[in-house]
Amino acid sequence: MELYLERGFEQTTVAEIAERAGLTARTFFRYFADKREVLFAGSVSLQEHLVDALDGVPDSASPMEAIATALDAAASVLGQHREYSRQRQFVIAANMELRERELIKMASMTMALADGLRRRGVHDPNASLAAEAGVAILCVAFERWVSEPADQDLSDVMRESLDQLRTLTAG
Amino acid sequence: MELYLERGFEQTTVAEIAERAGLTARTFFRYFADKREVLFAGSVSLQEHLVDALDGVPDSASPMEAIATALDAAASVLGQHREYSRQRQFVIAANMELRERELIKMASMTMALADGLRRRGVHDPNASLAAEAGVAILCVAFERWVSEPADQDLSDVMRESLDQLRTLTAG
Repeated sequence: MELYLERGFEQTTVAEIAERAGLTARTFFRYFADKREVLFAGSVSLQEHLVDALDGVPDSASPMEAIATALDAAASVLGQHREYSRQRQFVIAANMELRERELIKMASMTMALADGLRRRGVHDPNASLAAEAGVAILCVAFERWVSEPADQDLSDVMRESLDQLRTLTAG
Repeated sequence: MELYLERGFEQTTVAEIAERAGLTARTFFRYFADKREVLFAGSVSLQEHLVDALDGVPDSASPMEAIATALDAAASVLGQHREYSRQRQFVIAANMELRERELIKMASMTMALADGLRRRGVHDPNASLAAEAGVAILCVAFERWVSEPADQDLSDVMRESLDQLRTLTAG
């Protein structure tokens, strides 16, 4: 991440990343498929975390209550690393290939949340709609949280964004 | 499109597409950057159509009313080509590269709608949230419309999806 900020993503080689991390290139490729994956290593565990939280929600909860619980779980993971998140967002925004990879990870998260809702007995299109709304809230809240100067709690920003979406769709 | 269905997207060459369309490969590349773009040629004009509709909405309308009008405009374009849309969806779903390109086009549409809302004086995060919700509704409704057997009006499916999202977020 340091190297990506210093030199830009394109100009950084796997050899340099491995060296900075005290690894050989061979060990690097044991952990990451390519140099892009360094930035997305957390996405898989984040997704699992969200899905676990969703699966743990009591049956009585509404689809959006279940999604809100999953977002809370995401906030508790992401919310601890604001400086890293700011830097990562900066590197990704500057590179089209990385922005595309981010879109794919978000689409995967949407599908995983929709599947989780279906396991709870939510039918389509509600499962897809609630999952899409959840990931939209996650992205918009995350963007706000990393770009606004004041140090806020990510969970609060997520809950606020959910309220805003509710007000918007009601209006 | 016929060729993509007959042979699969990977197995179809530009030369074959051009021949079927009665063009030389050279003329083909004057119209399309690559063979993927054949499937996404409509995306740019669709986006313009949505943004024009959004810009034409009276100032008094709420952000989601403005989005609903843009979705109506999208439905009036897309709704005329159900069989083509079904086939296109089938070809895209079978190929990861095409699914990625589709995600990028949808992200571009989200940004264009958010910009349109900002021009109407809608502040962030509301502009982003309403745009994300709009594109989510567009995708979910489109998916339902092409995959459900009964022949429905796409505008009706869009409006129904918007109502469903309202009910979901309220609950």
